[in-house]
Amino acid sequence: MQITVRPLALTLETPFKLSYGATTVRENVLVQIDDGTFTGVGEAAVVPYTGETPARVSAYLGDGALAAALGDNALWLEDALDRLPPGESSAARAAVDMALHDLWGQHLGQPLHRLWGLNPARSPRSSFTIAMDDDEASYRDRLRAAAAQYGLIKLKLGGGDWRDDLERVRIARAAVSAPLCVDANGGWSAEDGLAIIPRLAGLGVIFVEQPVARDDVDGWRALRDGLPGERPPLIADESVQGVDSVPPLAGLVDGINIKLAKCGGLRAARRMIALARAYGMRVMLGCMVESSVAVTAAAHLAPLADFADLDGNLLITNDPYRGAQIVDGMLHLPSAPGLGVTPRD
Amino acid sequence: MQITVRPLALTLETPFKLSYGATTVRENVLVQIDDGTFTGVGEAAVVPYTGETPARVSAYLGDGALAAALGDNALWLEDALDRLPPGESSAARAAVDMALHDLWGQHLGQPLHRLWGLNPARSPRSSFTIAMDDDEASYRDRLRAAAAQYGLIKLKLGGGDWRDDLERVRIARAAVSAPLCVDANGGWSAEDGLAIIPRLAGLGVIFVEQPVARDDVDGWRALRDGLPGERPPLIADESVQGVDSVPPLAGLVDGINIKLAKCGGLRAARRMIALARAYGMRVMLGCMVESSVAVTAAAHLAPLADFADLDGNLLITNDPYRGAQIVDGMLHLPSAPGLGVTPRD
Repeated sequence: MQITVRPLALTLETPFKLSYGATTVRENVLVQIDDGTFTGVGEAAVVPYTGETPARVSAYLGDGALAAALGDNALWLEDALDRLPPGESSAARAAVDMALHDLWGQHLGQPLHRLWGLNPARSPRSSFTIAMDDDEASYRDRLRAAAAQYGLIKLKLGGGDWRDDLERVRIARAAVSAPLCVDANGGWSAEDGLAIIPRLAGLGVIFVEQPVARDDVDGWRALRDGLPGERPPLIADESVQGVDSVPPLAGLVDGINIKLAKCGGLRAARRMIALARAYGMRVMLGCMVESSVAVTAAAHLAPLADFADLDGNLLITNDPYRGAQIVDGMLHLPSAPGLGVTPRD
Repeated sequence: MQITVRPLALTLETPFKLSYGATTVRENVLVQIDDGTFTGVGEAAVVPYTGETPARVSAYLGDGALAAALGDNALWLEDALDRLPPGESSAARAAVDMALHDLWGQHLGQPLHRLWGLNPARSPRSSFTIAMDDDEASYRDRLRAAAAQYGLIKLKLGGGDWRDDLERVRIARAAVSAPLCVDANGGWSAEDGLAIIPRLAGLGVIFVEQPVARDDVDGWRALRDGLPGERPPLIADESVQGVDSVPPLAGLVDGINIKLAKCGGLRAARRMIALARAYGMRVMLGCMVESSVAVTAAAHLAPLADFADLDGNLLITNDPYRGAQIVDGMLHLPSAPGLGVTPRD
């Protein structure tokens, strides 16, 4: 099998403000795996705050051990995935996992969701993320524009005082009637969470993502013990990485946000879903700032999820591929074999 | 979809002696699901000691709620499985799960193992089970006959005094050079296990199945704490039922024996494998006294397992189907679509 790696610079439509900082361009990496019959494609999201760099991703993808691990039979997907070098870069492993799934699906002539026995109409609505914005008028405009197109609006919070966060949600609630969810990106203390979350529930927020910091186990426990039972589900995001990170969260969180670039790909994501279901957790599918390659890979899993936040490709102006689409707020999966993505040209 | 249910009386070649008692015939149930294009087949093992009866199995399969749950699109396998009534009979649910997988695979034109991305050559050798026998000469003869055909011999133990069990293993070790494993069917106390297991290790026993009783959590813990680290893996069988039974076994057992009739089918088995791998457990695939329908269903999962004990169809004289085969001790999976089983006629 032949591996080809090329840089993929994605331009953000709006500078992205997180509790971590702001950013305007992302340097992702595309990988193609060609077995002489078909070509599979995958994408590594280079996310600054996880320590990924284009160089680290390319080092993984260019390693001879990787090429040797792929074997020569694209049908034996599990064998190839078993042999992948672990490496430091989960985003690079995810890219290879996607490309191998794409190749496998093309050989079988079926889209991935069908090879998993899934009904594409079962996909949840995907949310669209609205960054924090100190200009109230522009915040309202962006909320209204998003609500006209998407069925669920996700508000980024966690930038400082929880009272400011609550005010953001009040503004959003007054501006749009669409369901809202919020992502604090770990920006609250347990005390903040205990104060704001019941108020958010009163404003119709349907889930709260990563209220406390990634490793704040005591914070998660304090929220679970201190909040009323009918709280909106608390979904772990930064607290979740790969498969191994799920069992310790049992009894601590109500759900997990699975992202391919964090967990290492589709197989790991499917294992995490199996674990989450065994623990009675909700499943959310998320993404990074990514083109339609990586977003579509995740979208094939959407019928297994309760919540989807697959808007990464909607935040960029130069998506080189076409794949899963959001039409009237609903996620539409491609029906072409494998990932089912095609270059825009 | 049309559901057809018929009895399947299986005749045992040798009366089967367990710590539970002895038996010469099994009254299984076959289910066929026809969607107008293809027909999927599944089998419910009626295992006396689990409380299954042909009547209970047929009651599940004949329930109108089941027919309604199947839906009308065989490609949406997960939807149908999500909607199956829970019911009391995990064997009946497993039969429906098998038939739906068979139907799905036929629509996609591929054998199940290929739809799971598996390399059939990765299947472990399947063991062949030798029941306890007080006639030493006949015990030796049966061991030698089995060793000539199968690569791994499983000895049933747990009938009484552990010293008698040890003597059985010594006789077997002297009679055949094939690797041995043992199944105590929960017949030992923790003290018995601490005495016999190190001796079994010295005789080259590669794993020990269900040393202590099903619910003897303290017994499992005592073995884990009291045995040396290089013990043969201790595999839970009766202690494992469905998906939910796996998390509580983490840290208590070295592996789990997954049987479709106990866990409710192929999807549950795959979830259990995902859980087991997340916990670092070994995976064994077992079966009941079953025809080639149910044994072949389990065999498609064999490339994901460390150990296979898929000899249920070899113990009967009137197998109505042909499917997975054991040739020179190696498991061969069918390459026809779905389960890939065909009636013998």
